[in-house]
Amino acid sequence: MSPRTIASVLRDGVRDEVAVEEPLEIRVDGQPLAVTMRTPGHDDELALGFLYGEGLIDGPREAGLTDDLAANIVEVAGPLLREVGGRRFYTTSSCGVCGKGALEEVAVYAPRLAGGPTVDRALLAALPDRLRQPTFERTGGLHATGLFSADGELLIVREDVGRHNAMDKVIGRALLDGRLPLRDAILCVSGRLAFELVQKAVVAGAPILVGVGAPTSLAVELAVDRDLTLAGFARGDRVNIYAGAQRVLSAAA
Amino acid sequence: MSPRTIASVLRDGVRDEVAVEEPLEIRVDGQPLAVTMRTPGHDDELALGFLYGEGLIDGPREAGLTDDLAANIVEVAGPLLREVGGRRFYTTSSCGVCGKGALEEVAVYAPRLAGGPTVDRALLAALPDRLRQPTFERTGGLHATGLFSADGELLIVREDVGRHNAMDKVIGRALLDGRLPLRDAILCVSGRLAFELVQKAVVAGAPILVGVGAPTSLAVELAVDRDLTLAGFARGDRVNIYAGAQRVLSAAA
Repeated sequence: MSPRTIASVLRDGVRDEVAVEEPLEIRVDGQPLAVTMRTPGHDDELALGFLYGEGLIDGPREAGLTDDLAANIVEVAGPLLREVGGRRFYTTSSCGVCGKGALEEVAVYAPRLAGGPTVDRALLAALPDRLRQPTFERTGGLHATGLFSADGELLIVREDVGRHNAMDKVIGRALLDGRLPLRDAILCVSGRLAFELVQKAVVAGAPILVGVGAPTSLAVELAVDRDLTLAGFARGDRVNIYAGAQRVLSAAA
Repeated sequence: MSPRTIASVLRDGVRDEVAVEEPLEIRVDGQPLAVTMRTPGHDDELALGFLYGEGLIDGPREAGLTDDLAANIVEVAGPLLREVGGRRFYTTSSCGVCGKGALEEVAVYAPRLAGGPTVDRALLAALPDRLRQPTFERTGGLHATGLFSADGELLIVREDVGRHNAMDKVIGRALLDGRLPLRDAILCVSGRLAFELVQKAVVAGAPILVGVGAPTSLAVELAVDRDLTLAGFARGDRVNIYAGAQRVLSAAA
């Protein structure tokens, strides 16, 4: 059975379509660890990508929905790389990492990015148009993340009501496919570039992150610090480079 | 000193402006409770609106940044209405409620909305244009929430990198001003309508919520269940009504 990604609702008395948002509980060895508001589908990837981004796993694990699909529970085989302690996570449709309660925990445990491909500026600008979004086109309600090769081939694309979920799914898929760290790849997101998306890209080892929207100050700061190439406002023929310009050919505006 | 909402960064070698994103720790009686990624400013309102939405306070409390502004810590005077237990919250720029670890905790403890104003459809459609967003215009990176009277007067507007933060700030301001519950008011948001925004509106008692973007399935479901008037895709002259159409005059499309 295909997961339900589109729901029918009444809009001004007529049937219309909206993107499905449902809670998903992530369990590790039977213990509830996190709840996220997500669009159903690729839940194993979502769970694995989330755990990878949190530094809780460093390789593929068995993962899957429990038999009662309506329960919206995904089980992951442990153990985790570190103790999570009494903390449990709650992530909503746009939330990156949850359950942390002190500023010093807002940090990134990943090495500085080195190397990576050099790509043409025009290629970066054009990537968002290659993010096919079939459900977005029907509902207007989804974010997308795409993983591209350095020459612009779309390798993986995932959609979700939560922008961080879409990226977790892509990274989870890449983990299952043995593609991590993403040394020669480009991540592209359909929305704005906030801290947590840069964090996830850095942890996954992706040297280049492109977004359709604006970056935040902390996103730029982290990108500069880890030498991630950060490109924003990618709109067909234009794109702004905020960090890591050495990977961008014709990098002058 | 005004809070820093805009930062200067290098974009393609020239100075450009981006929206500031910084972590904020919310403490209650000295105990760390939550961390959110937010745009500085109105941090007392953010803390109070967040706690109100979580059902942890039901009236104004003393709140303010600690003397060391760079520490990004807001202190709120307790006690809370209920024990939060060992849980601590982490909310990122787009995350509603955090720290919950089981599906049954994703719930809304608020009565069904009754009464409320009736408003003209054209008024709802026009509200987003009245959300003045000075910082958005400079950075393209902020969400806004506005509180409007039933005849369309803008009473409060707040901007933030996180859409849930912008709403928390508005609700916190309304709490300080003695306006809660928001029986005769309209909330308007600059983005999409996901579950957590509907949840916050319902808890604040707002009978009408309008958004520029698409609603999710769970947002519509909750709005129907609590009889909230939910309007999406508000774009100047058009708006879709997904629930609570009895409050909308000329409700037929």
